[in-house]
Amino acid sequence: MTPYELALRAKEAKDGAARLSEERKNSVLRRLASMLSDERTFLFEENKKDVVEAERIGLPRSLIERLRIDEKVVREMGASLMDVAALPDPVYEIEGMWKRPNGLLVGRMRIPIGVILIIYESRPNVTIEAFSLCLKSGNVVILKGGSEAFHSNLALYSLIRRALEEEGVSPEVVQFVSTKDHSYVNELLKLDELIDLVIPRGGEELIRTVVRETRIPVLKHYKGVCHVFVDASADLSMAEEICVNAKVQKPATCNAMETLLVHKQVAPVFLPPLAERLRKVGVRLKGCPETLRIVREGIEEATEQDWYEEYLDLVLSIRVVRGLDEAIAHIKRYGSNHTDAIVTRDYVNAMRFIREVDSSLVLVNASTRLNDGYQLGLGAEMGISTTKLHAFGPMGLKELTVTKFIAFGDGQLRF
Amino acid sequence: MTPYELALRAKEAKDGAARLSEERKNSVLRRLASMLSDERTFLFEENKKDVVEAERIGLPRSLIERLRIDEKVVREMGASLMDVAALPDPVYEIEGMWKRPNGLLVGRMRIPIGVILIIYESRPNVTIEAFSLCLKSGNVVILKGGSEAFHSNLALYSLIRRALEEEGVSPEVVQFVSTKDHSYVNELLKLDELIDLVIPRGGEELIRTVVRETRIPVLKHYKGVCHVFVDASADLSMAEEICVNAKVQKPATCNAMETLLVHKQVAPVFLPPLAERLRKVGVRLKGCPETLRIVREGIEEATEQDWYEEYLDLVLSIRVVRGLDEAIAHIKRYGSNHTDAIVTRDYVNAMRFIREVDSSLVLVNASTRLNDGYQLGLGAEMGISTTKLHAFGPMGLKELTVTKFIAFGDGQLRF
Repeated sequence: MTPYELALRAKEAKDGAARLSEERKNSVLRRLASMLSDERTFLFEENKKDVVEAERIGLPRSLIERLRIDEKVVREMGASLMDVAALPDPVYEIEGMWKRPNGLLVGRMRIPIGVILIIYESRPNVTIEAFSLCLKSGNVVILKGGSEAFHSNLALYSLIRRALEEEGVSPEVVQFVSTKDHSYVNELLKLDELIDLVIPRGGEELIRTVVRETRIPVLKHYKGVCHVFVDASADLSMAEEICVNAKVQKPATCNAMETLLVHKQVAPVFLPPLAERLRKVGVRLKGCPETLRIVREGIEEATEQDWYEEYLDLVLSIRVVRGLDEAIAHIKRYGSNHTDAIVTRDYVNAMRFIREVDSSLVLVNASTRLNDGYQLGLGAEMGISTTKLHAFGPMGLKELTVTKFIAFGDGQLRF
Repeated sequence: MTPYELALRAKEAKDGAARLSEERKNSVLRRLASMLSDERTFLFEENKKDVVEAERIGLPRSLIERLRIDEKVVREMGASLMDVAALPDPVYEIEGMWKRPNGLLVGRMRIPIGVILIIYESRPNVTIEAFSLCLKSGNVVILKGGSEAFHSNLALYSLIRRALEEEGVSPEVVQFVSTKDHSYVNELLKLDELIDLVIPRGGEELIRTVVRETRIPVLKHYKGVCHVFVDASADLSMAEEICVNAKVQKPATCNAMETLLVHKQVAPVFLPPLAERLRKVGVRLKGCPETLRIVREGIEEATEQDWYEEYLDLVLSIRVVRGLDEAIAHIKRYGSNHTDAIVTRDYVNAMRFIREVDSSLVLVNASTRLNDGYQLGLGAEMGISTTKLHAFGPMGLKELTVTKFIAFGDGQLRF
């Protein structure tokens, strides 16, 4: 199938996808969940082909781990399908109606976006997540996984198709790119008349390539350079717990803290015990000259480049600042509009930070690691967008829909 | 000033624009309203230069009329400023907060988009509308009007600057492109690191050029091919009033009806008197073969091209259809996702039409002309978007903002 034919099939499946009943969609998701468990031997076998190949060509260990499908991954995929089945269906929901002076009733109705192209790397469970969120939100999805997970993704796709067919849903609502040829994706990215949205999930390079190659709207985040600012009035033991959690709990994620900003009044008290605790769990520390004076040992001097860095690892850069203004200015200059937190007991500073920091989630007295669809109460999500338009923050079911205006009248005209 | 310098100035004015108080913004708008009236002689003089030039180069009469600033236009601009001053300020408003099981309070806060480039043609009052909506929504605006209105726009801009300065607001929140050189705009369109959104307002050609030249998100509508479908069960006198209003009240607008679809059961009764009434007010009629059999005189045969056409004039194409499915299929094929209406007394058909027609406004028993910010109760607007993402329909103050997530905690971590 040519890229054009594939995208055209997707477009032609739009109406059917939009009109699936909530019950039908949930039946597909639940059937797929049990199918993943029943067919796990098949999944393990197909996955093994990818893992063996990855080892042969010498991919890094961390990548191979993310690639692997084991009992735990199968259980997690099943659970995520059940989670999405439990979420309310947003399609054709009406968000508020109001009455105009001429009696016209006006409201906003949620409708699917249409055809969504998802381009992702490594973790094969994204195949299941992307499919389930797109199905539930009434969209058609085109799946393009990484070539390193090709057999795993193809196996998952074959189960998705079976689940759709067994529930009487057209399997055309999911399209799968079954070639490793890069030019195929580049052709898809040119089809802005057929594809409504592209969501690249993966490294910065993948995302930059997609943005360069397409005129289709893209929801993306390049990187997460997240900050915690410990203010002069902070509860220092709370601040310490937040900093350790934000840096250590899962350092490879986009919402982990990369830079700590500390008010100069509390830095001499706050930094030495924190530094010791972080070093004990293996965190490599870098600091501004003032931090070096305070912490003294086991810390390197941070370079200008460090403030821009998304380490995604047990590395932390620390800067002592003169106050809120300098903290906000630092975040504006080096940040990535992803997630930033203040720890403070000062009401005015808390509210200024909330207003003035321009990130997809701004927190007071809580860990940056909470920027996640489940943690914020949106349910399953398709990643976190730092694109401001349309969706800024975790993209849940609601962010995979748009609204149109509707009006119920009884003969209203315009004069 | 180079395009880069101008856009950089705009970007640097973002924080200041976002933080203006509602009172300050309203004072500027009210001051400008009275200034327009006080300085109307100056405006008329500057406008005359454009009109004289337009006449000299032989621009069409309709264009020259849209260009002209007279007492009425000055009053309308003043009124629109007062309207925007009366609208609630959306900036930093919190749209709902909810509590998570760990006690974290999560909500969405409205923030400005940032720097908005508006490219428009002809009508100089767009200068005032674009400025007032962007100021009130906390955005910085770059104004690029048509060269045919150059002196008028420059005069309006000079008053805007004075109003800002007299109220103590940095005039940098409005940037004005004071060259007629096309390459200047093309350079601006390349600055996706500095400009957050482009809104082209004008003909299809202008919009296509902008889309082709930029990677900045664009809110647009190419054209409005709007339909009214008169169902078999319609109240035919209501249907006649709606059709006449939708076609005749202001035929040059994007929400005027271009194609009428009539159920075959009522076509023989409904069409002849409607056709006569429309012909009497000067509407040129085109029809499908079935329509020609019914109406017989004073009607031409419609070509395939007619169904795609946005006449923007007293021309109407009419098609007889076998029912709702055919009507919806016609709209899907030839429509422009702008505005479509059904006239019916059938509940099931009304609800199917509302759900299945994919337009920015879908109406039951009301005129397509009602697709407008004021008519729908949103207040002043910046045009109607048929781009689905971010804003679909009239773009009011809310559509000129986005939301970020905010969270108030007391030490919440992730486990």
